[in-house]
Amino acid sequence: MSAAVDALPEDRVIITDGNVWSAWGSAFSGERVLVLPPGEQSKSMRTYDEALRWVASSGASRRSAIVAFGGGVIGDLAGFVAASYLRGVPLVQLPTTLLAQVDSSVGGKVGIDLPEGKNLVGAFWPPTAVSICLETLRTLDHRQLNNGLAEVWKYGFIMDPGLLELLPPETERLESIVKRCIELKARIVQEDEFETLGLRAILNFGHTLGHAIEQITGYGPILHGEAIAIGMAFEARLGERLGITRTGVAESVRQGLVSQGLPTDSDCLERADDLVAVMRRDKKASASGLAFSLLPEIGECKLIRDVPENEVRACLKER
Amino acid sequence: MSAAVDALPEDRVIITDGNVWSAWGSAFSGERVLVLPPGEQSKSMRTYDEALRWVASSGASRRSAIVAFGGGVIGDLAGFVAASYLRGVPLVQLPTTLLAQVDSSVGGKVGIDLPEGKNLVGAFWPPTAVSICLETLRTLDHRQLNNGLAEVWKYGFIMDPGLLELLPPETERLESIVKRCIELKARIVQEDEFETLGLRAILNFGHTLGHAIEQITGYGPILHGEAIAIGMAFEARLGERLGITRTGVAESVRQGLVSQGLPTDSDCLERADDLVAVMRRDKKASASGLAFSLLPEIGECKLIRDVPENEVRACLKER
Repeated sequence: MSAAVDALPEDRVIITDGNVWSAWGSAFSGERVLVLPPGEQSKSMRTYDEALRWVASSGASRRSAIVAFGGGVIGDLAGFVAASYLRGVPLVQLPTTLLAQVDSSVGGKVGIDLPEGKNLVGAFWPPTAVSICLETLRTLDHRQLNNGLAEVWKYGFIMDPGLLELLPPETERLESIVKRCIELKARIVQEDEFETLGLRAILNFGHTLGHAIEQITGYGPILHGEAIAIGMAFEARLGERLGITRTGVAESVRQGLVSQGLPTDSDCLERADDLVAVMRRDKKASASGLAFSLLPEIGECKLIRDVPENEVRACLKER
Repeated sequence: MSAAVDALPEDRVIITDGNVWSAWGSAFSGERVLVLPPGEQSKSMRTYDEALRWVASSGASRRSAIVAFGGGVIGDLAGFVAASYLRGVPLVQLPTTLLAQVDSSVGGKVGIDLPEGKNLVGAFWPPTAVSICLETLRTLDHRQLNNGLAEVWKYGFIMDPGLLELLPPETERLESIVKRCIELKARIVQEDEFETLGLRAILNFGHTLGHAIEQITGYGPILHGEAIAIGMAFEARLGERLGITRTGVAESVRQGLVSQGLPTDSDCLERADDLVAVMRRDKKASASGLAFSLLPEIGECKLIRDVPENEVRACLKER
């Protein structure tokens, strides 16, 4: 961790959460640091307001970097603070969870939630640097690691079947796997930074339903990686139903996730009305239907924008 | 007004204020419209939150345009909503005050205030269209028109001495003057969109002190144009004191503003400590001093970043 700290810009303020700071705060000294409560509830307008007022009071200027030191919630929140404080200041991501390291810290999507939905407010604000310190993974428990590994499986399903052969991973392989995932994501983001080409949308495999699950269960009881694992299992079945996904792919997806100890089903899927209402508000949905990133084959993915709601409802019933 | 309404994108939501809507709302029908209270207090985090939640509930998608229908406050607030809702949706500016038409609707600066200072949060988010309807100026009183004319004088002082010969303007000249100001601003913004080159900063002549005046007097009793008129008169004197501005320029600036009926002094300048404390937090200030855009000559302006606080205090005393 000390190497990562030494590499930070000198003029900086740190935004972190209580769990991360109690584990790693001793690596820092004399910092301007805002320690927020852990959990998705910190991705709220209220915390955004609090963080901005703290940054303003700390005397940060346009040249000060905001360091997001934590998991995806801290990265998204502190990232949006960096995107909007003084109309934008440098952002350094120092992600401390596998989920943030392989996914959210790369690519520049930052933002907060509204009561009306997750990530409804934010910006594209690429970090000036992402500093990965694998040491921080040591403080994560099994469930937290699996939370990140769900996204690793996703990279395999959507674009890198070779990666699937390394999964579930042995601990000593984690470093090279993290590296491979960041390269995959960076490649997509470079080609479609603002999600205007449909390419970047493939990263959302499992996420249309996954986000809806998180939303209707109130963010927390089901972790993001768990929600998207359930989402991937479902969206693979949905693809087969629509004739887009080759028959058999859904079972391979399910078996892979089960081998990792990730969930592929949940009682909350019975709440079809609630789920569809949320999916209708998804940023990629259109007037003609819901939007899903579906797998024609393992290793391929494409965005379908006009999936009829009745097909989605039928597929939810057919569990 | 009906031509301007016809030119709007079909998929739209409108954000406006009560004054504008009661004057011009009849030109619209069947709109999704959010009517906010008039005044700077609507550029708050609270109103931003309210507006975002309203936009989300209205079912606006990534393709929906947000129409900012009002003066600078509405343009800045609705602009920041457009910049951040779903990480950015199209923005159409339909400015209804002279101030917004010649200045804030062009150039893409959007944002809100914090209790710690004006415009501390925001984005660069260029409108996809700016629709100027001079008809709306008819509902403005003398003081509101002068509020915008202060920015017109500014364009003359910083880059267009020929414009000064048309000031104070006759009503029938207003259309060509608005056009000329927009061209001047667009030229600068195109060259330095993100204010990284120092060029765009010349638009801030009169604004370092002007913003501080608005801040310490609580936004409202002194209008923006009045505050920057006082700021321009002061910053011209400050430039002479520092040997940057040719002797005599300050008196020309003052006389011009007086001929327009704009203020060039205020009792609040006695509160030097309060003013300096705010100016220290200005986005362009540096460790070595305060930042002012100063006039070497009428028609020329440059950003000076390291103005010593004691010079500023002395110049405030010397009124």
